Amino acid sequence: MIIGVDAMGGDFAPAAIVEGVAYAVDDNPKVKLVLVGHKEKISYYLAKNNISNHPNIEIVHAEEVVNMDEKSTVALRKKKNSSITIAAELLRDKKIDAIVSAGHTGAAVAATSVRVRTLPGIERPAISTLMPCVGGHFILADAGANTDCKPENLAQFAILAEAFSKITFGIKEPRIGLLSVGGEEGKGSSLTREAFKILSEMPINFVGNVEGKDIFQKSADVVICDGFVGNVLLKGSEGLAKATMHWLKDAFTQNPLRKAGAMLAKSAFKDLKAIADDEEFGGAPLLGINGICIIGHGSSSPKSIRNAIRVAGEFVEYKINDKIVARLKECNLLEK
Amino acid sequence: MIIGVDAMGGDFAPAAIVEGVAYAVDDNPKVKLVLVGHKEKISYYLAKNNISNHPNIEIVHAEEVVNMDEKSTVALRKKKNSSITIAAELLRDKKIDAIVSAGHTGAAVAATSVRVRTLPGIERPAISTLMPCVGGHFILADAGANTDCKPENLAQFAILAEAFSKITFGIKEPRIGLLSVGGEEGKGSSLTREAFKILSEMPINFVGNVEGKDIFQKSADVVICDGFVGNVLLKGSEGLAKATMHWLKDAFTQNPLRKAGAMLAKSAFKDLKAIADDEEFGGAPLLGINGICIIGHGSSSPKSIRNAIRVAGEFVEYKINDKIVARLKECNLLEK
Repeated sequence: MIIGVDAMGGDFAPAAIVEGVAYAVDDNPKVKLVLVGHKEKISYYLAKNNISNHPNIEIVHAEEVVNMDEKSTVALRKKKNSSITIAAELLRDKKIDAIVSAGHTGAAVAATSVRVRTLPGIERPAISTLMPCVGGHFILADAGANTDCKPENLAQFAILAEAFSKITFGIKEPRIGLLSVGGEEGKGSSLTREAFKILSEMPINFVGNVEGKDIFQKSADVVICDGFVGNVLLKGSEGLAKATMHWLKDAFTQNPLRKAGAMLAKSAFKDLKAIADDEEFGGAPLLGINGICIIGHGSSSPKSIRNAIRVAGEFVEYKINDKIVARLKECNLLEK
Repeated sequence: MIIGVDAMGGDFAPAAIVEGVAYAVDDNPKVKLVLVGHKEKISYYLAKNNISNHPNIEIVHAEEVVNMDEKSTVALRKKKNSSITIAAELLRDKKIDAIVSAGHTGAAVAATSVRVRTLPGIERPAISTLMPCVGGHFILADAGANTDCKPENLAQFAILAEAFSKITFGIKEPRIGLLSVGGEEGKGSSLTREAFKILSEMPINFVGNVEGKDIFQKSADVVICDGFVGNVLLKGSEGLAKATMHWLKDAFTQNPLRKAGAMLAKSAFKDLKAIADDEEFGGAPLLGINGICIIGHGSSSPKSIRNAIRVAGEFVEYKINDKIVARLKECNLLEK
């Protein structure tokens, strides 16, 4: 198994990426890692991590990198030698089995969509992300790959995220909910009302509309929406979590008594922080492309990268795309 | 000034509503309150609160009520004598200056839109709600009145929420942000990209796209979006806040040391709860109709109702709709 890593993508690249790779090569001696990026810079950090001539690490040089503030479509047109484009080409040419990137999300989506193409039956790929909720996690798809969707896209996302739920949580028949603004069938936008009809007729465990107030109580294992709504929900939740930590700090430093209480219960705050922390999973899979791609958070730590590489390997082993295509066939979505 | 109160709307109606009214008549002797709903039931609770023959309280009988689980359009067609419909007709006929309702939100929107109509230049009204953020609140519009919007609707919402921000926070030039999935102009959905262009050309303090991760840091005073996205964000935030309280409780009861800490800092938790609590404001104004309507949370307490009545009175005094129409004129939105 060969996993390609976009060594230049992310706020702390290539340092954090190469450090994550150093852990990953130890985790699994059967996995070969191809680091795509600036050869000299990568070599410097390989040496720093004492893995300069590791038999399972290879470098593929990429002269350029798409910066976080660039417009992805423009960057991909102008920077034909960016690390993410070259990684996508390696994936297309079957020289690697998967990509891990903590770089520009839009660039990863665009590069893989254009270079690697989507699976048969899938018009657009979906970013499928884990969201913490009471009692575990739910999967949100699409979390931001597509800002404008058709009802059919949402039906396809359901199959993509269903496979993710099966592999990650071992759920046999994941409960699939359609994110809407009311529980009843008639509620929602014109998009979700049409999607509701399609989802209702598919051989999946469709639990109907789910609302923002219920999803954090795990009203569904998989929550489907268009990428605009999904991204607003994802980023909004991150923003609210950050504000909540601020309010917590504020509340627990108001007076000496509260400060003393906070001191005693110090470890409780760590537990709370850990809930919002997605290091354990490492990233969000971009599902629906004809290959595996795990997108890490821009601020990915070495631990996140290590875990994203592990997850990418699991997806390859599980042959997730074969399973998705088989399910699309069962759902009569292949010909569309 | 005469304020109509939907006495039957809400999870704890009419008991909580009438109790709120009992406070409100004491607050302001210049305000007359018209309670719309089942006469006998209202009379029972008026007696309980010792305000049976209060000179500033009048009952207008309504035989029916729209239940929380009914489809609003169907309910309004079938229940012509529901409390919210009769209240809307009183508002249309200028027999009352404002409505306060903690009942079915969709029914309140539909009844006022159909019976009272919108202001000139406004195609659709918007629910404008206060959201807590670090350093205060921001206003979210539309929070759920319209699931499918045109770019022009979003421009109109900006003017509605701007007036709300001015009256409520005394901000001279509220910063108006467009909720999107990236900061730059080109980012977003086809809807938001078009709305961006219109908002850019209006004589308002438009700060461009704002993202979910920033709004809770008060990146704008007013955040504009379609009602589907707004409702998902609102309900999602409520859901996450509820989950967070669960996680807090969990974290602080893990072991005796943490429990002791929680005990010492007990009052801190009350502060945290108060942040999510919207009792102080009482409800979310439905702006854009040719009258005043404050929509309370279904679970409104007497305190919420009391405050919603106060806010309704302030909106009437401030002549918010005259100001909105004047601003629409300044922004060349009147003829549309």
